[in-house]
Amino acid sequence: MKVALKDDERIDQLYSQDIKIIQNPNVFSFSLDAVLLADFISVSKSPKTKLVDLCAGNGAVGLFSAHKTNGMIYEVELQSKLADMAQRSVQLNDLQNQITVYNTDINDIYAQIPKDSVDVVACNPPYFADLDTSKKNPNQYLAIARHEIKTNLNQVLSITSGLLKTNGRCFFVYRPDRLIELLDKMQANRLVPKEITFIYPRSDRDSNMILVSGIKDGRAGGLKIKPAITVYQDHSDEYTESIHRVLYGN
Amino acid sequence: MKVALKDDERIDQLYSQDIKIIQNPNVFSFSLDAVLLADFISVSKSPKTKLVDLCAGNGAVGLFSAHKTNGMIYEVELQSKLADMAQRSVQLNDLQNQITVYNTDINDIYAQIPKDSVDVVACNPPYFADLDTSKKNPNQYLAIARHEIKTNLNQVLSITSGLLKTNGRCFFVYRPDRLIELLDKMQANRLVPKEITFIYPRSDRDSNMILVSGIKDGRAGGLKIKPAITVYQDHSDEYTESIHRVLYGN
Repeated sequence: MKVALKDDERIDQLYSQDIKIIQNPNVFSFSLDAVLLADFISVSKSPKTKLVDLCAGNGAVGLFSAHKTNGMIYEVELQSKLADMAQRSVQLNDLQNQITVYNTDINDIYAQIPKDSVDVVACNPPYFADLDTSKKNPNQYLAIARHEIKTNLNQVLSITSGLLKTNGRCFFVYRPDRLIELLDKMQANRLVPKEITFIYPRSDRDSNMILVSGIKDGRAGGLKIKPAITVYQDHSDEYTESIHRVLYGN
Repeated sequence: MKVALKDDERIDQLYSQDIKIIQNPNVFSFSLDAVLLADFISVSKSPKTKLVDLCAGNGAVGLFSAHKTNGMIYEVELQSKLADMAQRSVQLNDLQNQITVYNTDINDIYAQIPKDSVDVVACNPPYFADLDTSKKNPNQYLAIARHEIKTNLNQVLSITSGLLKTNGRCFFVYRPDRLIELLDKMQANRLVPKEITFIYPRSDRDSNMILVSGIKDGRAGGLKIKPAITVYQDHSDEYTESIHRVLYGN
């Protein structure tokens, strides 16, 4: 389906999955975070499966996960301008039968999606605490997407837990400097951490991104640290093979 | 200095540091864990520095750290047969003026080393819970070194915290499947996690070892995930460059 683009919007493509996505650098663009989170998600193929993407932004994670399941995907985004981009990207890819976009505060989501009904929740939450001292983006759209202005980590985890069925799975992308807080608050919300993947920009650099999965009311212990992902090759601006595969499919 | 070897003992060498160490495969041998832990320790050069190695085994971590400081090193080991090996290795390397071996239960260590007096504590604790169901090593020496029979993680962390000065640093090598427990119990014992290095046997395998540092009464937050260490090269039984350097110095 053809869709109309608004000012400053462009259509980008994730080649590995032949998905088109409406981007607007002034409002929100997906980045490697969303691609890696979508790749990290494991979800049943069953048409009965329900996957929710919280803090969906322009819908990247849901769009990039669509090929993994025949179930339904629900994208939840507070900011109407971003939810509208997500909705048009769904149409652009003819995924209206699979993906529904809810333009709502995640705190109001139970009006749309019942508690304890979801198999998988994915979320790329705002990374930065809403401290007076933190350098917020003067652009309101980006500030809300990146800083804990309209929601915070504990709210995200509480709603994730509320939506999930027992033994439902959650998948997050986050920052290493808040790993301990994430693990603590997951456990406080009955989400037992099961797997972590650390992303390193280069082999000689500190990790700058983490992927964490958990199971609602899962058995404690047995955490697995999955193989490290390095983004760039040594002494080069080329992506590593694994990143190239995620982006381009080969 | 020459020392006498007992039955089944041999002398191994860590070439990167020209350190000789008495080993006995029936009692205890150091492994890569100890080499990487010693490499991970950061300690002041100052002669006033005090470094304690808890659960010292045959003394590998203290011996391999000796070149990093002009301060004193205290090795604490419960099992007399292991402490005796450590003591003779200290003599073998003529390090008697720098390294003292205490053959004592870590719970009794305050009789030897005052509380709040130590700059750095390192420990390679028993990894495995002392459950009836766990397959314990029938060899008593190895069982005590590897399983939580004579001590446990919380005791180790409590004593680490007790020994350290405010802002003193601790360094542990441990297993990923108990990472969350380690982080929780460190914090419960006023040891704020600061850096983690994940060790991967191969680039496509899960991590099987972690190095974690903390600061007593440090400021919470700001955890760093240091560059990953991979032990073997892809499709090869050769060590990676970084492991080769730690073992052989080049």
